[in-house]
Amino acid sequence: MTTAVVPGSFDPFTTGHLDLVRRASALVDRVIVAVSHNPNKNHLLDIETRLRTIRDTLEQEGLTTVTAEALPSGLLVDFAKGRGATHLIKGLRSQIDLAYEEPMARMNQHLEGIDTVFVLTDPSLSHISSTLVREVAGLGRDVSDFVPAPVLGALTATLAKDS
Amino acid sequence: MTTAVVPGSFDPFTTGHLDLVRRASALVDRVIVAVSHNPNKNHLLDIETRLRTIRDTLEQEGLTTVTAEALPSGLLVDFAKGRGATHLIKGLRSQIDLAYEEPMARMNQHLEGIDTVFVLTDPSLSHISSTLVREVAGLGRDVSDFVPAPVLGALTATLAKDS
Amino acid sequence: MTTAVVPGSFDPFTTGHLDLVRRASALVDRVIVAVSHNPNKNHLLDIETRLRTIRDTLEQEGLTTVTAEALPSGLLVDFAKGRGATHLIKGLRSQIDLAYEEPMARMNQHLEGIDTVFVLTDPSLSHISSTLVREVAGLGRDVSDFVPAPVLGALTATLAKDS
Amino acid sequence: MTTAVVPGSFDPFTTGHLDLVRRASALVDRVIVAVSHNPNKNHLLDIETRLRTIRDTLEQEGLTTVTAEALPSGLLVDFAKGRGATHLIKGLRSQIDLAYEEPMARMNQHLEGIDTVFVLTDPSLSHISSTLVREVAGLGRDVSDFVPAPVLGALTATLAKDS
Amino acid sequence: MTTAVVPGSFDPFTTGHLDLVRRASALVDRVIVAVSHNPNKNHLLDIETRLRTIRDTLEQEGLTTVTAEALPSGLLVDFAKGRGATHLIKGLRSQIDLAYEEPMARMNQHLEGIDTVFVLTDPSLSHISSTLVREVAGLGRDVSDFVPAPVLGALTATLAKDS
Amino acid sequence: MTTAVVPGSFDPFTTGHLDLVRRASALVDRVIVAVSHNPNKNHLLDIETRLRTIRDTLEQEGLTTVTAEALPSGLLVDFAKGRGATHLIKGLRSQIDLAYEEPMARMNQHLEGIDTVFVLTDPSLSHISSTLVREVAGLGRDVSDFVPAPVLGALTATLAKDS
Repeated sequence: MTTAVVPGSFDPFTTGHLDLVRRASALVDRVIVAVSHNPNKNHLLDIETRLRTIRDTLEQEGLTTVTAEALPSGLLVDFAKGRGATHLIKGLRSQIDLAYEEPMARMNQHLEGIDTVFVLTDPSLSHISSTLVREVAGLGRDVSDFVPAPVLGALTATLAKDS
Repeated sequence: MTTAVVPGSFDPFTTGHLDLVRRASALVDRVIVAVSHNPNKNHLLDIETRLRTIRDTLEQEGLTTVTAEALPSGLLVDFAKGRGATHLIKGLRSQIDLAYEEPMARMNQHLEGIDTVFVLTDPSLSHISSTLVREVAGLGRDVSDFVPAPVLGALTATLAKDS
Repeated sequence: MTTAVVPGSFDPFTTGHLDLVRRASALVDRVIVAVSHNPNKNHLLDIETRLRTIRDTLEQEGLTTVTAEALPSGLLVDFAKGRGATHLIKGLRSQIDLAYEEPMARMNQHLEGIDTVFVLTDPSLSHISSTLVREVAGLGRDVSDFVPAPVLGALTATLAKDS
Repeated sequence: MTTAVVPGSFDPFTTGHLDLVRRASALVDRVIVAVSHNPNKNHLLDIETRLRTIRDTLEQEGLTTVTAEALPSGLLVDFAKGRGATHLIKGLRSQIDLAYEEPMARMNQHLEGIDTVFVLTDPSLSHISSTLVREVAGLGRDVSDFVPAPVLGALTATLAKDS
Repeated sequence: MTTAVVPGSFDPFTTGHLDLVRRASALVDRVIVAVSHNPNKNHLLDIETRLRTIRDTLEQEGLTTVTAEALPSGLLVDFAKGRGATHLIKGLRSQIDLAYEEPMARMNQHLEGIDTVFVLTDPSLSHISSTLVREVAGLGRDVSDFVPAPVLGALTATLAKDS
Repeated sequence: MTTAVVPGSFDPFTTGHLDLVRRASALVDRVIVAVSHNPNKNHLLDIETRLRTIRDTLEQEGLTTVTAEALPSGLLVDFAKGRGATHLIKGLRSQIDLAYEEPMARMNQHLEGIDTVFVLTDPSLSHISSTLVREVAGLGRDVSDFVPAPVLGALTATLAKDS
């Protein structure tokens, strides 16, 4: 049985992320969406909201072999190993992404023999980054094309509270 | 009549920017240089100085179809649409520039149908970024090769005041 | 009035090319699709068929400011200048495309002051190259998603004759 | 059960290819090494030699879930589908590789829903391409660091016969 | 006699940096490792520790034509010129590195005629950046593969004191 | 004493090549321009003409530490070693160039410990490739901006004879 980790901050989880997770689940037996949270960083959605909306999305999409967990502090490869995972799966939007991922992938291979596997993002979703979604939603524009329904609800509620 | 927006922070407006604006003006009927200012960011030249020096440069260069405006807060594409613009024009210095511009270009196309058009910067100007000009000028070096005359005056005055 | 040339071999003209031409026509007043033909190269569709199917497509799409012409032997910039064109318009599918286009763009600027302008191809069309279409069609697969209707007819007829 | 195809001409099969196949076999249940042969192309090793040396290598390395087959003429995705494969697995040596692979990956996804997955080649093997190995071996240099032992034997025999 | 400067923050100096310096010393007669320190930046190792561990490493490796110095505030090219250096030598890990280095290299050429020369990092060391080493060491993992012995001692001592 | 080889086919030797050779000569003590000739390839200028025009250019430019030689068949690194050279020096016009050069550089390092060093081409010369010069000259255009005077004479004479 193969287990892979899909790491990210997912602030918010987008339809691009959903596409990546769906394709990861077609490749390996078990997928863990590992949600990082940095106490020193100003996240838009808190870690609980991100986990809840990702889990709601996974359930709604029938992705029964995928789970979501908060990533504890420490090295990602230690978390992966502790969960019995052998691979990381990452989405590539461009050649630049690859350049940033390459040293990390090699270091993770070196440290714990965890191999990183890349899938190309769907071209019609490749412009959807969490950063752009936060910016566009923050300016009051509709982002329902960019995030799954459970995420949209939480995003709208959070932005209403902030303003 | 085609109108295009050339957006940027232009802190300062360089001879590379001037080359871009001149080429944009040869392509479309009307060009708006849209100067962004971020109240949370420490600009070297304030927005009024940047607008004034850009306008002085445009006049001096006889670029009569080009105007300069401060970019209001909000989405760039909303500003463009409000001005009747259908295109953004950006300079490409390298393939990396393209990678950063691509998701934004696609998002702007998605949101309001505003198309982004790229021109290659003149190779003899491609090393002139605002960041490098600020750094070099800040260390007291001559930057008259890198900025138009009206910008040079303002830059010198500002740096004299700061020191 | 601005005139731009969109050069290529268009063997065959794809929906990706159509998207490029449509966006070029929104940018400048007049667009000339310049179809190159190399007597030493084994084209799938001959130059007359390519010109005819492109013209039929332009008419069908209502692109009244766009014409198609065979590119005579000689320099592209001489053709452009002879037609009163000031710009070339090219589609960018990737950063690699940019690397190939860059020296040619600079040379064309150097020789006759013809400036090259780049637009990003629609991401949902970016995998459609003439080469892949020829290969896929040649193996008997349906390519109706990849070429306009007038091109599809000619492609099918040519492949039937060849086999 | 997941089946993936690792396509290539493997002329010859290198230690870089072996690393790729080993990592593919750790990711999916069954791997098919699909060896293309082009009758119009001048291969150094004929298709039978390539298949035999790949199979000998797989056996020697204990890669029991990996098989090797000649790729019939026609589309790669049709072969993959016929074998029950859902994925292609490719090695990435550089960002350039990605640029070439991207349109093919999207086309294969479009035609038959076959997803392409990328792994990074081991950096200490990334300079070993079949082309360089053929060139270096053809000039009489030792290539035992670059190809598995069964391939080395066939390569040496072929080059002795040719000279 | 040719003198070249190898600039960096070297926080910490890694085996990748050592490889770069060794290759620089095979190319030119004299190499100066110029260690930048930014008073506004939170370095892990202070400038004295970095200089001392680099010098100890150079001595231990027998690199007698290489010296290490703190980089004073001001332009790198002024420092280089003051030392009689005509070249900067930089390591390239990827094409992205090149994109970042290019404008700086051109600016340094423009300002003082100092030419920048690039060598490729050893592929088996290309994943070793100071940033990754700080992160991995900070989480208590062994980094003895990534830094020379004199650096390892200082790193361990500093991290013990910080925790 | 450091000796470096600058390899190429130099068909023809351009002002971009001259810039590269001049910068190589500022870096190492002795530079050998190694001119490859492939009997199966249709060169515009034959090997004797290329050698003669390169030598005339070197003399005219006062580059007394640079010589030009025909590259014998065999591996480039064997030639370099035979001449006591320890380095290859190559020009980089773009990130793509780097991608092509990287595997060769690593192979040359692996085979004979010959290190490859890269310099950036002068941006105002980066569009001048031998291929473009042949094409532009072949169409009867003036290429005196792109090649040194001794090369221009030979190019003109050859093209006159061919037509």
